[in-house]
Amino acid sequence: MIINPNKLSSDSKQIANHNEQFDHLASRLSKQNIEVPSLVDKLAAFQVAIPSWALGAGGTRFGRYSYFGEPASLEQKLEDIGVLHSLTRSAGAVSLHIPWDIPTDYKAVKELAFELDLRFDAVNSNTFQDSVGAKHSYKFGSLSNTSIGARQQAIAHNKEVIKIGEKLGSKSMTVWLADGSSFPGQHNFQTALSNTQDSLKEIYKSLADDWKLFIEYKPYEPYFYSTVIQDWGTSFMLANQCGEKAYTLVDLGHHLPNTNIEQIVSTLMFKGKLGGFHFNDSKYGDDDITVGSIKPYALFLIFNELVYGMANNPQNPELSWMIDASHNLKDPLEDLIQSLEAIQITYAKALLVDQDLLKQAQKEHDVSLCQEILQEAYLTDVRPLVRQARLKLNAPLAPLQTYRNLGVREQLIKERGKNTVATGL
Amino acid sequence: MIINPNKLSSDSKQIANHNEQFDHLASRLSKQNIEVPSLVDKLAAFQVAIPSWALGAGGTRFGRYSYFGEPASLEQKLEDIGVLHSLTRSAGAVSLHIPWDIPTDYKAVKELAFELDLRFDAVNSNTFQDSVGAKHSYKFGSLSNTSIGARQQAIAHNKEVIKIGEKLGSKSMTVWLADGSSFPGQHNFQTALSNTQDSLKEIYKSLADDWKLFIEYKPYEPYFYSTVIQDWGTSFMLANQCGEKAYTLVDLGHHLPNTNIEQIVSTLMFKGKLGGFHFNDSKYGDDDITVGSIKPYALFLIFNELVYGMANNPQNPELSWMIDASHNLKDPLEDLIQSLEAIQITYAKALLVDQDLLKQAQKEHDVSLCQEILQEAYLTDVRPLVRQARLKLNAPLAPLQTYRNLGVREQLIKERGKNTVATGL
Amino acid sequence: MIINPNKLSSDSKQIANHNEQFDHLASRLSKQNIEVPSLVDKLAAFQVAIPSWALGAGGTRFGRYSYFGEPASLEQKLEDIGVLHSLTRSAGAVSLHIPWDIPTDYKAVKELAFELDLRFDAVNSNTFQDSVGAKHSYKFGSLSNTSIGARQQAIAHNKEVIKIGEKLGSKSMTVWLADGSSFPGQHNFQTALSNTQDSLKEIYKSLADDWKLFIEYKPYEPYFYSTVIQDWGTSFMLANQCGEKAYTLVDLGHHLPNTNIEQIVSTLMFKGKLGGFHFNDSKYGDDDITVGSIKPYALFLIFNELVYGMANNPQNPELSWMIDASHNLKDPLEDLIQSLEAIQITYAKALLVDQDLLKQAQKEHDVSLCQEILQEAYLTDVRPLVRQARLKLNAPLAPLQTYRNLGVREQLIKERGKNTVATGL
Amino acid sequence: MIINPNKLSSDSKQIANHNEQFDHLASRLSKQNIEVPSLVDKLAAFQVAIPSWALGAGGTRFGRYSYFGEPASLEQKLEDIGVLHSLTRSAGAVSLHIPWDIPTDYKAVKELAFELDLRFDAVNSNTFQDSVGAKHSYKFGSLSNTSIGARQQAIAHNKEVIKIGEKLGSKSMTVWLADGSSFPGQHNFQTALSNTQDSLKEIYKSLADDWKLFIEYKPYEPYFYSTVIQDWGTSFMLANQCGEKAYTLVDLGHHLPNTNIEQIVSTLMFKGKLGGFHFNDSKYGDDDITVGSIKPYALFLIFNELVYGMANNPQNPELSWMIDASHNLKDPLEDLIQSLEAIQITYAKALLVDQDLLKQAQKEHDVSLCQEILQEAYLTDVRPLVRQARLKLNAPLAPLQTYRNLGVREQLIKERGKNTVATGL
Repeated sequence: MIINPNKLSSDSKQIANHNEQFDHLASRLSKQNIEVPSLVDKLAAFQVAIPSWALGAGGTRFGRYSYFGEPASLEQKLEDIGVLHSLTRSAGAVSLHIPWDIPTDYKAVKELAFELDLRFDAVNSNTFQDSVGAKHSYKFGSLSNTSIGARQQAIAHNKEVIKIGEKLGSKSMTVWLADGSSFPGQHNFQTALSNTQDSLKEIYKSLADDWKLFIEYKPYEPYFYSTVIQDWGTSFMLANQCGEKAYTLVDLGHHLPNTNIEQIVSTLMFKGKLGGFHFNDSKYGDDDITVGSIKPYALFLIFNELVYGMANNPQNPELSWMIDASHNLKDPLEDLIQSLEAIQITYAKALLVDQDLLKQAQKEHDVSLCQEILQEAYLTDVRPLVRQARLKLNAPLAPLQTYRNLGVREQLIKERGKNTVATGL
Repeated sequence: MIINPNKLSSDSKQIANHNEQFDHLASRLSKQNIEVPSLVDKLAAFQVAIPSWALGAGGTRFGRYSYFGEPASLEQKLEDIGVLHSLTRSAGAVSLHIPWDIPTDYKAVKELAFELDLRFDAVNSNTFQDSVGAKHSYKFGSLSNTSIGARQQAIAHNKEVIKIGEKLGSKSMTVWLADGSSFPGQHNFQTALSNTQDSLKEIYKSLADDWKLFIEYKPYEPYFYSTVIQDWGTSFMLANQCGEKAYTLVDLGHHLPNTNIEQIVSTLMFKGKLGGFHFNDSKYGDDDITVGSIKPYALFLIFNELVYGMANNPQNPELSWMIDASHNLKDPLEDLIQSLEAIQITYAKALLVDQDLLKQAQKEHDVSLCQEILQEAYLTDVRPLVRQARLKLNAPLAPLQTYRNLGVREQLIKERGKNTVATGL
Repeated sequence: MIINPNKLSSDSKQIANHNEQFDHLASRLSKQNIEVPSLVDKLAAFQVAIPSWALGAGGTRFGRYSYFGEPASLEQKLEDIGVLHSLTRSAGAVSLHIPWDIPTDYKAVKELAFELDLRFDAVNSNTFQDSVGAKHSYKFGSLSNTSIGARQQAIAHNKEVIKIGEKLGSKSMTVWLADGSSFPGQHNFQTALSNTQDSLKEIYKSLADDWKLFIEYKPYEPYFYSTVIQDWGTSFMLANQCGEKAYTLVDLGHHLPNTNIEQIVSTLMFKGKLGGFHFNDSKYGDDDITVGSIKPYALFLIFNELVYGMANNPQNPELSWMIDASHNLKDPLEDLIQSLEAIQITYAKALLVDQDLLKQAQKEHDVSLCQEILQEAYLTDVRPLVRQARLKLNAPLAPLQTYRNLGVREQLIKERGKNTVATGL
Repeated sequence: MIINPNKLSSDSKQIANHNEQFDHLASRLSKQNIEVPSLVDKLAAFQVAIPSWALGAGGTRFGRYSYFGEPASLEQKLEDIGVLHSLTRSAGAVSLHIPWDIPTDYKAVKELAFELDLRFDAVNSNTFQDSVGAKHSYKFGSLSNTSIGARQQAIAHNKEVIKIGEKLGSKSMTVWLADGSSFPGQHNFQTALSNTQDSLKEIYKSLADDWKLFIEYKPYEPYFYSTVIQDWGTSFMLANQCGEKAYTLVDLGHHLPNTNIEQIVSTLMFKGKLGGFHFNDSKYGDDDITVGSIKPYALFLIFNELVYGMANNPQNPELSWMIDASHNLKDPLEDLIQSLEAIQITYAKALLVDQDLLKQAQKEHDVSLCQEILQEAYLTDVRPLVRQARLKLNAPLAPLQTYRNLGVREQLIKERGKNTVATGL
């Protein structure tokens, strides 16, 4: 399904209403010496990749409630992302997961993506599940396995993912290594780490010069005692061992309770080692729920570091942004629209922070003022700025409402039926 | 020090600017069928007690950096709260701590409070520190102690606090029972709980008919293994044992990591057992930092339950609101102004929630819409509403700025010197 | 498969070795005035139910690695538990899960259980998954659902489970209510709680006089923002609302980080409201791994409260003990043998605590001594006591080793094949 | 006070009893091919430093209950450690804290230490409190401060601490940098990290060739939003920046909830960057309570990694072991005796792990067996081994009992009175 662009324009009343809100805000911000047009340009330019596995319903170990009209093929997944991009103009990239999304016809897939205005961002390997007919199981690990056979199979898989990515025009691969142990004693930590280091180096050798390797970390799950790459420190250490094209990837849900994530982001940018960033939100663990639905202020503080780093740390690459959420209760497309909205809103707020004033207040240890400066930006209702960016891009002012008004889900069900199941979790 | 009311009025330019912002917002909200004037009235009526120990610098076990111009007497503490109330018109109550603040001249203290427009809210007992010359130590507990002598001393102290409160016009007492153990085996949990139950019942007998007893809970600190009243369930159980005039008191910082506090608030209001509420914020433990500085959205969700409960659960008393924060780095008065501001802003946002629409969406399991409704309220910049409430009350539009412009701290230092130390922590 | 009892006896060398270890320990303990024979009797009498869903491999939301020889029917599940009971003489009960294990032939099932020396302990209802063809979905709740249809369907299911239990000779039902929400705003907490209260009361009416209702609590998962029965306080409150036959059930994995579970156990026993107890262990969340594999000392402290309560709180019923673990990596039967071993060892240690001495030390605030008393019991190697209990019951001294020596798993695979899948998670 | 060595010998009945227990255990272990004598030698050789600030009562921000007979001078502190060492023969080192313990007479202090058989282990700098009369305050940071004056003062202090350590024969300095922020926005993370890096490099220049610098990390407290060196990754990164003589120091209490500390220890040893280790225990935060009193199995797992690393990672230095606990309720000396006992017991258990068998089981993914191997070691009652080491060293078999029998505390009170206060926290 591809939405007819004519259906995406807002009506004149909506636009008049928006203009009034925007003008009022822009006038206020201009008095604070904020360059509103360039801020809107930044918002318009910000694009987040959608992973190909996020278009269907997710589940928990206790079960999964299926969603109607799920995409049954890679082409349908791309179409869903195309819908998102049409509605928001901020989802202009796709992040493929191998082996769930191996193209059968590369040319056709690339043409479809081009038509939908989608880039292929980082490709993702998968060694946390066994493929049918695989010689070696990953039950006890892949890149870290004590069995050389399992390690070599996992290395070969990663190399294959890079090749697939190259054919599609991707420029990076993300390795989320689920490897770990569920019981004390199961792993020799040093062996597991050493094997992982060697395996990653081997994979790294296959990277073309203009490619990047993103190493993700996570403290627990699917294993319940240890994870080989448990924290940013381990990822950073491994990336340094691999070389200049290896970076750490931060996923918001992959931290222990109370972690100060914004400081980790800042440290990695300071060191030029932040490569990728996965958005989601959570209250307890890696809950993978809608961005900004639980801790929007923490997200703002993280964005504040990202904005600062993008302006001050040219040693980092352009970041690969992705939404890594799961959709157990909501329509996946609605959920993703809400996540995209939350990302844009939070980015806009972070762009409002008066960095010069903040630096001065920090220098003078004026803690109350430091707080005021952040709060001033955070409390501002920036939705008119986000809408202005959409208007510039010919996207509807209210994507979720438009999605509902157009009956997109009903249309998808009509096309695909109620029993399709998207590959994924 | 008492601020001359003439110095508190905002200048015409500020007022004009505010009027423009307020009119713009009010017009937008009116279109959503929100009754702006009554909302502003609610904001204006909302009053939060300031505890008498919060006017000086706080510290940690690693030390304390003193603050200049701290109040050295109860009278000076009242004056500081008077300053806060003049500046914000939302701090119209004081919560005394005994034995730190026993009046020597009740009449004079009451007159001063009257002059400053301050009520005496809940009085607080203290059995977590030994008084000089006390016969029994609380090192191993007070109301829960295995020693009957210590228990009786603690009971007598609580009864004395009630008497002091009665003389001042208070109508409630808060018991924060720090009692606990730092090592497995130190306590027989059943004995400690049984003693506590009996002690509280004994104290409860002294309550006048129009008085209330608030039972606070906390999972740990100052003891590091167990606390006798560790959670809302224990407090609720004890309050039920005591009788109708006993209630649970919720302090935002007194919960384990990831606790859903708003659900606790909701349960207590449903059962008619929420009596008091202590504001602060925290990232790790009972950090006691500025309200809204870390998790403003969580505070909004809590306020959403409070607003709902105040409208729908008449079985609860009018709540006793208090800021229970510590000021290790900031000027205590600045910190409290920021806390008061955060409370008003969050209350205003919670008042914007369209409860009818929300109930309907909940009924229809329209989860995306439920989230939109909350976000719509939360994302609105409500500061013009808060300022409008201040304007009505003849308070300055920008309290923190006014505090600085008037040089209040400098004046306090001039009056009190640099070496005064407020009683407290 | 039923193990020939003749194969279960230990050889004379093992027995001689055991006797030497046991005599040495018994002699030492006797000097401390511990009555070893009665202690061994208590160990021998302690029986833990095995849930019918725990005999197959478990999984996570990221997938499941299947295990060979899984039981494919209720009869095979009973046989597996029979194997466990033969090997340990401590697994003499089964806890059925409905609808996964509805008997087709009640008489045959009861006879098989009798033959295997297994009781039917608490039956478990399931409203966290939809049954095929069910009219109402539980996606948005069951007993708490805003839809009366869903609530009534869930109530009817629970009543049916009681009926099934009655036919088998069970005397209790456990309700684990997964109901909750994944997003702020999704639930009206008061409505959800009120509906749940009413639904439970309705179910409670169906309980025969000699039956008990166990209400389980859990803070999160499968929902990620709130759970209707989030903690012991809520369960306790609901149990009180229902009546005398309703009790709280504690599952070790269902707590927030750092919770003092032993204190909860103590409080519930003090109030006569502890009914059931689920064993497992965890490091991060509800990890459901082998009992005692992560926090054995916490388990000891909990058992210390249980032992104390069983001796001092006759107001509680005999507890329903169950292992509620998942087996993602290990052979499920091996895992359960290790859990049973950990339970017996920890129970034995708790029985060694000198309660009189402890009470005296507590009274004297001799904290160091309190700790010494617990450590003295905990540090003792009690395995000879556990083995002595086994010897008395004609069970093998080393169950895990015997399981392996007898080639039980190989035999099961031969009988059942490699592709059976046990119903469960 | 120095205990007369004659009073330390155990009586013949105690010794006979011990011999019987030891022989029984040694015989059993020998059958498992464990070389008992060399194991006892390792236990006897293990020495843990006592920090000079741990001999008095500790407190919390809510107050401090003083302990009678506290040491009032450095000499008295050394004597207290001498008492501990006499009683346990495992506390043969002292870790000084500057400025609390600057010697006035170096020669005398060294002679006293020699007489008491105490080494000077790592010295500790303090920039988390202001010294009287200091020009710059550390309220807003020391090595990370935006003020160059404060940074230089802190650097100079650290250099002075090294000099003091050199005079006493220390070979290392520990930097616990408390620097952090309590509010979002207060710190520019990159500036704070960059300043810290530069400051540490500057301090590092002062290190003699045979010295080591230990960089401690901690996630929070005394600041409540961020700490500059928040985790091992940051410490490791800074140590690498400094050079070969810089190492990470692990304090058990300085981690977020649920952290897998043993894996961190393993990673650091793998990389040759573990330098120091602080023992204590905790349930909630940095509770600093008696070693092994809360999570003895976690301590065992950590020791398992330490033992493995000491055997397999010669790239690490000999570790600096220290007890970093606080004594709020117990007699500090009793508490330290219990901690020393817990350390020896846990070390002994870790030494029992059959590393060859474990490696084999890990290789074969025999997870059940891996667990059995650890449990076999952990469940063994190793106290006879610890006592045997004491016997070899002419220390009493039961140090705590001997401490009480000798009336040490009573004697200290007689000598020092009830009102002395040890410098410290």
